[in-house]
Formats: sequence, structure tokens, C-alpha cells
Amino acid sequence: MSIITLSLINILKQPTSPTWVEQAIANLDVILLDHSHCERKAAGVALNLMFRYPAYTQLVRQLTAIAIEELEHFEQVNRWLERRGIPLAPLSSPPYGAGLKALIRRSEPERLLDSLLVSGLIEARSHERLGLLAMHCPEPELAKFYGGLMASEARHYGVYWLLADAYGEREVVKQRLEELAIAESELLATLYPEPRIHS
Amino acid sequence: MSIITLSLINILKQPTSPTWVEQAIANLDVILLDHSHCERKAAGVALNLMFRYPAYTQLVRQLTAIAIEELEHFEQVNRWLERRGIPLAPLSSPPYGAGLKALIRRSEPERLLDSLLVSGLIEARSHERLGLLAMHCPEPELAKFYGGLMASEARHYGVYWLLADAYGEREVVKQRLEELAIAESELLATLYPEPRIHS
Repeated sequence: MSIITLSLINILKQPTSPTWVEQAIANLDVILLDHSHCERKAAGVALNLMFRYPAYTQLVRQLTAIAIEELEHFEQVNRWLERRGIPLAPLSSPPYGAGLKALIRRSEPERLLDSLLVSGLIEARSHERLGLLAMHCPEPELAKFYGGLMASEARHYGVYWLLADAYGEREVVKQRLEELAIAESELLATLYPEPRIHS
Repeated sequence: MSIITLSLINILKQPTSPTWVEQAIANLDVILLDHSHCERKAAGVALNLMFRYPAYTQLVRQLTAIAIEELEHFEQVNRWLERRGIPLAPLSSPPYGAGLKALIRRSEPERLLDSLLVSGLIEARSHERLGLLAMHCPEPELAKFYGGLMASEARHYGVYWLLADAYGEREVVKQRLEELAIAESELLATLYPEPRIHS
């Protein structure tokens, strides 16, 4: 199987390995189920930030829109699952999300900054990986679905970056993003044995 | 001020007192801010249930739609706040939500049943109270806004009831709803001194 990875989205330090693409394409049903969990989790993260910073108008406004969109995607992925006869079910998480969460510092304003940047990085990686699925998925309709979603992920990355920039000092934000982006790529350096969006 | 309360929505054991209406109408700005928090919380509760029961297809599907709608209402209420120059801000909660939450039993399947019924009761009460605001609010445009939202709340109550009925035995569900509805009215028997949707 010849695999060409997409040109690297700006911020990501390492592109996704061809091994991930092979693993994902060989396990499209599990990837769809995991994708459903990812969309629900992304909505949950946006909502949690809105609960934690209820007076941050710009954050609340932008994350409301993101949460709605993630829930709409969640519903769309669930319809794909239904169409393929895959029942909704829990799925063990790869270490990626917990690993990134552990890097969020506990005191403010670092906590807000790190939370926004970690969410942004996850969106950037999702953008890259949905793009790879769109490119390599052998089922044209499913490939098209992934292609449609990848644009939103890039937009969400942009929103998280702009919020970080709005609430923090540009230089501090850039440097922290650099550190977190390195950690993000390291977390994906070893392929998780189970097929996942972020394995 | 002459106040006529709406005809009681079926399940509620006691109608809202005219004193609440007076308190709310005299403090429309605080009520709007509290309403914003209520919509965000309602979305959060729906999402939490989706996280807790990820394999319950009907629940996940129905609550996804509810969560999206609550977030859309959240956004609409926030636009009203902005138009009136009221900044987003935290607000202390009345004892209502915590009081109801304390009645949710901890073991399954009681936990699921109680969670659905408590959410249904809160929606039913919100329906009644938004209806009262629609009827008594002296600002026609705001009154119309409340009138538009109250129909959704009734629909949400219906969804929670149907889910409880789908996952539980009809007689058990009816009896538990009866008990919780009595507790719900008792929680509102004494007016909370701060104006709130559920004071």
C-alpha cells in the first residue's frame, strides 16, 4: 500500500506516519466508532471551558458555536455507524488525550492558555488525520464525508489559536504552543496498538 | 400587580406562586443572566448523560438534539444580554438544582431513571416559568422571545419522559415521577431571596 501523507499542517511538529494510515484503513469500523467518541469529547471540552470561564465573552461565544458543530458532527458520525450496523459502544481511549491533558498547568492564567492550545493541537491533528482518511479511504462516500469534516477541524484550530492569542501575550502563546506541539508529536511517535483517530 | 398563573403543566404538583412572578418581572436583567446559565447547564446535563450512557442509542440520539437546542438558546439569551449591556458573569445558584440532584439514587438502573425524570421536571418547570414571563413581561419583544422558548421546554420534558419510559417499567417510572414531582414543588415552596429562574 503506497501512502502519501498530507503536507504538514503548519503547527504540527511531525506528520502522521504511514503506519497509522494503514492501521486506520484496515479498521474503518473501529475508526468510525472512535471518531464518534472524539466528536462527543470535543463538544464536552468546549462546554467545560464555557463552564470554567463563564464571564469570558469571546470564549463563550466562539466555543458555543464549536460545541454545536461538534455535536452535529457527532450525530452525522452516529448515522454512519447506524448505516453500517455498528452499535454505539464504549471504547478504550489511547494515551493521547490524557497525555496532553496532563500538560495543562493548574494555576491561572496558564491553565486557560494551555487548555486552549491543547484543544487547538488536537483539532489540528484531527484535521490532518481526517484529511488522510479522505485521501486513502477506499469507500468514496465515506471518503467524501471525511473530506467535508476536515475543513471544520482546521477552522476550530484557528478559533482556539485566536482565543489563546486574545487572552495571552503573543510571544508567551507562541512559545508555549511550540512546547506543546513537540509533546503532541512525541505522544504519537509510538503507534497505539488499537486503531484510533489519535493512536 | 395582578398576576394570573398559567394553567398547571400536567406533572407539576404546585403552580409557581405570584410572588415569583413579581420578583422576576422586577429583576428582568438578573433573570436573563440566570437564564443564560440555565441553558448552558441544561446542555451540560444532556451531554453528561451521553457520556455516562454512550451505548444507549435512543438516549444518545435524543439528547444530542436537546444539547444542540439548549446551546442555541444559550446563544440567543446571550445576545439579549449583549443588547441590554449586561456582561456575562457568574451567579450564585438557588438550592433547586442541587436539591433535585441529591434525590438521584446512586445505583443503576435507578440512577438513569432518576436522572431522566429530574431533567424532565426541570424542563417542565422551565416551561411553566418561561410561559409566565411571556405573559407578564412588560417588554413585548422580550415577552415574545420567552413565548418562543417555552414550547421547546415542553418538548424536552416530553423527550425525557419518553426516555424514562423506554428504559424503565411504566408503573415504576410513574411512581418515581410522582415522588420526585412532590419534592420538586417542595423545593420551590419558599421563594429564594435572589431572583432566579428556579428561585
